[in-house]
Amino acid sequence: MYIGIDLGGTNIAAGLVDDSGQIISEDSVPTLKERGYKAIIKDMAELCEKLLRDGGYKMSNVTAVGIGSPGTIDNSSGTVVYSNNIKMHNVPLVKEMQKYIDLPINLENDANAAAYGEYIKYGEGVNSFVFMTLGTGVGGGVILDGKIYRGFNGAGAEIGHSLLVIDGKECTCGRRGCLEAYASATALIEQTKEAMSENPNSKMHEFAQQNGGVNGRTAFTCAGLGDEAAIRVRDRYIRYVAEGVCSIVNIFQPEKFVIGGGISHEGEGLLAPVKEYVYGNDFNKYMPKTEISIARLLNGAGIVGAAMAAKNNG
Amino acid sequence: MYIGIDLGGTNIAAGLVDDSGQIISEDSVPTLKERGYKAIIKDMAELCEKLLRDGGYKMSNVTAVGIGSPGTIDNSSGTVVYSNNIKMHNVPLVKEMQKYIDLPINLENDANAAAYGEYIKYGEGVNSFVFMTLGTGVGGGVILDGKIYRGFNGAGAEIGHSLLVIDGKECTCGRRGCLEAYASATALIEQTKEAMSENPNSKMHEFAQQNGGVNGRTAFTCAGLGDEAAIRVRDRYIRYVAEGVCSIVNIFQPEKFVIGGGISHEGEGLLAPVKEYVYGNDFNKYMPKTEISIARLLNGAGIVGAAMAAKNNG
Repeated sequence: MYIGIDLGGTNIAAGLVDDSGQIISEDSVPTLKERGYKAIIKDMAELCEKLLRDGGYKMSNVTAVGIGSPGTIDNSSGTVVYSNNIKMHNVPLVKEMQKYIDLPINLENDANAAAYGEYIKYGEGVNSFVFMTLGTGVGGGVILDGKIYRGFNGAGAEIGHSLLVIDGKECTCGRRGCLEAYASATALIEQTKEAMSENPNSKMHEFAQQNGGVNGRTAFTCAGLGDEAAIRVRDRYIRYVAEGVCSIVNIFQPEKFVIGGGISHEGEGLLAPVKEYVYGNDFNKYMPKTEISIARLLNGAGIVGAAMAAKNNG
Repeated sequence: MYIGIDLGGTNIAAGLVDDSGQIISEDSVPTLKERGYKAIIKDMAELCEKLLRDGGYKMSNVTAVGIGSPGTIDNSSGTVVYSNNIKMHNVPLVKEMQKYIDLPINLENDANAAAYGEYIKYGEGVNSFVFMTLGTGVGGGVILDGKIYRGFNGAGAEIGHSLLVIDGKECTCGRRGCLEAYASATALIEQTKEAMSENPNSKMHEFAQQNGGVNGRTAFTCAGLGDEAAIRVRDRYIRYVAEGVCSIVNIFQPEKFVIGGGISHEGEGLLAPVKEYVYGNDFNKYMPKTEISIARLLNGAGIVGAAMAAKNNG
């Protein structure tokens, strides 16, 4: 048995995971990220102990623990080199965690862990697998020949930071025009708000009011109701996503490309037009095409991937 | 000993290559690409025989033959699935060549072969290596863990077909806004001609006249002479290249990134500003940076890479 921990900006989620990547049980506690990393790590360890206790297991039943964390990760030393989301700089996360849990512990970037979880559950055996999350940012994970691709320095697979618009919008990374600045849920919310202020009669105003404000669903839902302004936002946003997928497909020609993150809950409404654009515009006209699909593990991907990366060492 | 063949649109170049990747001798004949592939393949075989004869060798001294060809390649079956440059569609190049030469023959995409040549000579041992050529198009080759990365269908590593400008210039691949449409030598010549027609007093007119027309050096050379219009063309072009490199660095975080092709002859004049831009704008702020350099094998890369891919099976 393995434990997978998905360390997020809002919650610490953890689960007991069996050898095949099935979640046995899961639980979570708030991250309270302002506390600093020592208290957070202590809570991570306590969450593991609680999971075991609740399931009637002992630490000796566990082979290894895997952690997925935001930020730039040094997998070999188990260090969070830098994370902006939960403020960490050169934090020896594995070493700190081993003060509480005396087991092998593997640390991955959270997007890599989620990618690995989807790969293990729904992509195992494919020679190349790309995962893209449309969430707060645009995260990425690439699995080649069954291994997490990290680049020579551990910072690879940042597919959200490939260009979409030269001299375009400023990105969180400091560069201008990255895919993330257009195709993240954050960007979609911004695009929705802009359209709302330009279209005071749009249905999006009412929808936002009923749903506690503008979110990633506002434009998609109102577009489905025929609202013209929402249709323009949705279609333009889908085009951004499709262009990003198309570039990555041309570069990797992966056997599978999986889209996850909050916006992926739109399902076919997102997937169908993305596939249509990519299959009509990708470079490869003569060989079999990449299979493009929506993530299936959703929030569990981070837990499963972290646990299975600890099992297989990614 | 190995034979490497670089099948180009203008010339067929071939060389005898020793076990370490050193060219012993080389020769070439015109491709005359309109003839159709059967006559071209016969000439490729005769060029191999001539090289051996001239060097006092026999076919029995050769372990294997490698070919780098433009187009989409099926490495496993030795087929050119499609090439637009030399018109070929489902040509069983290896089988046809083996009618003349009874040896193991390996077929690669030409950009992959050139990348592998540079890797073997100047990158061996690095865990990740990206090669980008600025020539007629923007070609790419990616070597991961010592193996040519081809994607699941053999059509991978088309880094020239990642996006630079959404809704931008039409690319040869049919999509709009690809890096290739801005950063190829072809695109630079187009950009130079546009600037010349807008600037009748530019030194570029005289330079072009003295050099048989506008070419990839026109803007760079005249910019070096202080010509304002040429400086604008050069600096904008370098920015295009730098943005392309930056996206690929964010995706792969390769240990080495090598720029080849005709425009790479500009050397430091191209390399220094590209490095400055990439190191100032890439996503990775905390880990060691990718080493970016200019190709060193130049035209020999295709021969060496084809031969060494035949030796190591890429």
